[in-house]
Amino acid sequence: MRRIEVGGAQPYAVTVGAGLLDTLDVPERQVALIHPGDLPRPFVERVQAALSPVVTVSVPARDACKTLEVMAGVLSRLAQVNLPRDGAVVGLGGGAATDLAGFVAASYLRGVAFYTLPTTLLGMVDAAVGGKTGVNLPEGKNLVGAFWPPRAVWCDTDTLGTLPPEVFREGAAEAFKHGLISDPGLLPRVLAPEFRPAGALLTETIADAIAVKAGVVTRDLTERGERAFLNFGHTLAHALEGVTHQTVPHGEAVGYGMHYAARVSRALGGADLTPDTLAFLRWQQPSPLPALTYDDVAPYMARDKKADSDGVRFVLLHELAHPYLTRVPDDVLRREFDGWRNDISQLG
Amino acid sequence: MRRIEVGGAQPYAVTVGAGLLDTLDVPERQVALIHPGDLPRPFVERVQAALSPVVTVSVPARDACKTLEVMAGVLSRLAQVNLPRDGAVVGLGGGAATDLAGFVAASYLRGVAFYTLPTTLLGMVDAAVGGKTGVNLPEGKNLVGAFWPPRAVWCDTDTLGTLPPEVFREGAAEAFKHGLISDPGLLPRVLAPEFRPAGALLTETIADAIAVKAGVVTRDLTERGERAFLNFGHTLAHALEGVTHQTVPHGEAVGYGMHYAARVSRALGGADLTPDTLAFLRWQQPSPLPALTYDDVAPYMARDKKADSDGVRFVLLHELAHPYLTRVPDDVLRREFDGWRNDISQLG
Repeated sequence: MRRIEVGGAQPYAVTVGAGLLDTLDVPERQVALIHPGDLPRPFVERVQAALSPVVTVSVPARDACKTLEVMAGVLSRLAQVNLPRDGAVVGLGGGAATDLAGFVAASYLRGVAFYTLPTTLLGMVDAAVGGKTGVNLPEGKNLVGAFWPPRAVWCDTDTLGTLPPEVFREGAAEAFKHGLISDPGLLPRVLAPEFRPAGALLTETIADAIAVKAGVVTRDLTERGERAFLNFGHTLAHALEGVTHQTVPHGEAVGYGMHYAARVSRALGGADLTPDTLAFLRWQQPSPLPALTYDDVAPYMARDKKADSDGVRFVLLHELAHPYLTRVPDDVLRREFDGWRNDISQLG
Repeated sequence: MRRIEVGGAQPYAVTVGAGLLDTLDVPERQVALIHPGDLPRPFVERVQAALSPVVTVSVPARDACKTLEVMAGVLSRLAQVNLPRDGAVVGLGGGAATDLAGFVAASYLRGVAFYTLPTTLLGMVDAAVGGKTGVNLPEGKNLVGAFWPPRAVWCDTDTLGTLPPEVFREGAAEAFKHGLISDPGLLPRVLAPEFRPAGALLTETIADAIAVKAGVVTRDLTERGERAFLNFGHTLAHALEGVTHQTVPHGEAVGYGMHYAARVSRALGGADLTPDTLAFLRWQQPSPLPALTYDDVAPYMARDKKADSDGVRFVLLHELAHPYLTRVPDDVLRREFDGWRNDISQLG
């Protein structure tokens, strides 16, 4: 079992290990449990046994739950059972369900205590730490939400054993990204055979990947600076998700996006990290993308959250563990897109 | 013109005076303007001339705009024009529209700059200061929202001249309440003939009433302690609104609720302030309430936001300007309700 401290205005701890769902400790007397409908029942029942929630709300699986409409229904359920302001919301599930649960917690009575129990690798390494909560709009992903840090995060590695292998590999993208931007020791471990559900490197690798994000979040709670580095690979990733109407899984989009960002980094004079990002893609085995041109994705990149009135900023790498934020000339973006498309066409 | 500073983590100023809508200064380059559809056009046009918003969104009048559904539509409009995260949301209108606009600002891209231009007395004295934003649920008022302080508030007293007299008198309830809990000098001025649109006491009285709330908010940004005192009269007021399905205007409900709280205060050994609260009701001339019993309103009081797992807490007064927070025995609440009902039946 590993414990990672996250600092900031309201510090909290992330615990990683097996069997955690049976040992949960939430001081609030009244708890609302939110989980996706496709979560294996035993996980829901273990949490119910540990926390005795006053209401358990099942929401649609994956991103189908991240809408203002679903959120309105969940909020009404909380109001119907009269969850008090000293109650708590507990989110159990993948990143989508915990993002929704967090925004519900941030908004219900203008904010109640929030706890996260991520059940996917992506949810553990990425969504559960950092305080970002929210839902999607028809116009794009994560356009609505709040910064609302949890009071505690429990990552029970038991839950990862029920994931399809491709969902586990999908989630590894964020762990690999944390290796690239901050902790190169993670890179070989993510690709090692022992990094698998119930494998010898599982808890340690997840905990180290979380520690990277915890460190960034501790130093920069509002994404003005260093926190943006966590978006390495995400500018193209978000565009791939947008242009395909969210049919590309987030972790696979990030895998593709990291390789694009590695190419752009090299084009602007940085070290050549494309062997690493290609090695990851060969390990991850993402689904092939539809045929796309630069002109297809460019409008989505322009809408990126890191964009301001002056245009899109990219997170790039001078070398391993040395990220920076910069604007990139359009001709570079276009040329590297064509090179990237050629690279990924040769993966399969 | 008067200027009131509001402290806290992110200080801002409230300006009160005539002609302010023409002199607005918002540093953000891209601005979304949100206003209720029934607002007189000249006010909207003056703000458009001053700020050149990239999008102007008209929302339903009064509480009809305070729904998650309306909010979703507004957020989509902002996403469609690609309002950047260094843009701003400006709310122009009564308390309902500015509450909605504030929650939109708090949630869009997890938070953008927010400015408030209240156009009603209630909006100026109550809704515009304190950082409370939000919408209603079918289950109750203000059950969803965020603490999201504005960057600046401009109260242009010109806008009050277009209000029906009963709407102006309605809004005076919160100013009178600020007199009761903190600044007794406000009490005779609120009831004076010169406290009227374009009257000699208008700007000064509004500014002093705002200063009470600004002081409380500066000292206590999250409603753990002193801030609860601003809810004097509101426990019954919210119940009256709930049981009548929001047909009682908020300021009239507060007028009624202050008299009930004054009676309960006296019953628990406090000074007798019922002559003041009755004088206010005679001045305000609220619409008569439907016939109600204590058992009609008690469930709504139990759902009050100040309720926690141990029950409802009331804000009471030891004497003028000496509020406190306490639980009240149910038999006292019941007995004083009957006395209150008798008092208000003799108003007309």
